[in-house]
Amino acid sequence: MADKAAPDATRRSQRSHRAILDAAIGLVGEVGYPKLTIEAIAARAGVGKQTIYRWWPSKAAVLLDAFVALGERAAREAGGAEAYEIPDTGDLEADLKMVVRATVDELNSPEYDAPSRALAAETVINAELGAEFVRRVLEPQLQLYVKRLRAAQDAGLVDPAIDPRIALELIVGPLAHRWLLRTLPLTHEYGDAVVEMVLRGITVR
Amino acid sequence: MADKAAPDATRRSQRSHRAILDAAIGLVGEVGYPKLTIEAIAARAGVGKQTIYRWWPSKAAVLLDAFVALGERAAREAGGAEAYEIPDTGDLEADLKMVVRATVDELNSPEYDAPSRALAAETVINAELGAEFVRRVLEPQLQLYVKRLRAAQDAGLVDPAIDPRIALELIVGPLAHRWLLRTLPLTHEYGDAVVEMVLRGITVR
Repeated sequence: MADKAAPDATRRSQRSHRAILDAAIGLVGEVGYPKLTIEAIAARAGVGKQTIYRWWPSKAAVLLDAFVALGERAAREAGGAEAYEIPDTGDLEADLKMVVRATVDELNSPEYDAPSRALAAETVINAELGAEFVRRVLEPQLQLYVKRLRAAQDAGLVDPAIDPRIALELIVGPLAHRWLLRTLPLTHEYGDAVVEMVLRGITVR
Repeated sequence: MADKAAPDATRRSQRSHRAILDAAIGLVGEVGYPKLTIEAIAARAGVGKQTIYRWWPSKAAVLLDAFVALGERAAREAGGAEAYEIPDTGDLEADLKMVVRATVDELNSPEYDAPSRALAAETVINAELGAEFVRRVLEPQLQLYVKRLRAAQDAGLVDPAIDPRIALELIVGPLAHRWLLRTLPLTHEYGDAVVEMVLRGITVR
């Protein structure tokens, strides 16, 4: 109907879109995934249900888009960069520590904690949602590590026999383990120690 | 009342105890933690509610005991050993690969998968249950790695500057990450690759 939207309508659209994603993130942290509804998201965002269904087929789809947007925002805030990637200053240890510290800060931030735990809890028991979460949210973030580690291999710093897709899990796995299971505090010092231990194992001697 | 239990009563007691733990594991995998009730556990175990309350104060307490028992059983089946520990054959890589492969098999087994996911999902969002899970179930298992890595340090194989409590997380973190989030298949080959990469980083050169 509104294929050629006027500038005002476009701005309204963008505001609604953002309000819906924010509402989804806020609500899932408060009520958990099983009790999240399109109705409640619409009410909090101040839009009609049909506005949401025009853009997304399900609450899972809204929520995953909301987490993609949250991740992109966190990356921009952490790096200040336009591009969504791990910087390459030539110093692999410094670059990895920077991104790991930013991840630690994000995981420890109150606005991220409750929504992310609600989503993680559901992905653990809901294989279909879990697969979509991995495909749309998690794997693209993990591929940033693959890219940075490959660049370090090209630069002759990391052993070419190392599989970057496995090496990155030695970094993000321990962070996720501490965060999800709350075994011990998730701190910058811990992140630094993990990066140092992994690099001892994968760098060229 | 039955402080001096007759042998028959003791055997009945042991059977009931085991039946309650088995019922708790089976049920939580079917209905999830929020819908697990003492009533349903009692009904499936063929005992009265009061029998459960005589031994445990809450469903969380029953369930955590059930997971402790499950872990001990899995360890006995994997190692065939009386003692619940990581073997020390003098070959650290072989010992770690053995325990990691057993863990991979346990995580991939159907009888373990659903109950463990139900518990894991709840611990992610329920900090109180999570803390009890870590204290009673997870940390004792992690300390087995600490003990084995310390022995390797004493034997001069692992760098004494390495913190074993962090090094073990580079092994179990990636396994948990793949299992919880189902990013990629959790296989023996993956477990071996993780152990090899970690050992490259922590052994004396």
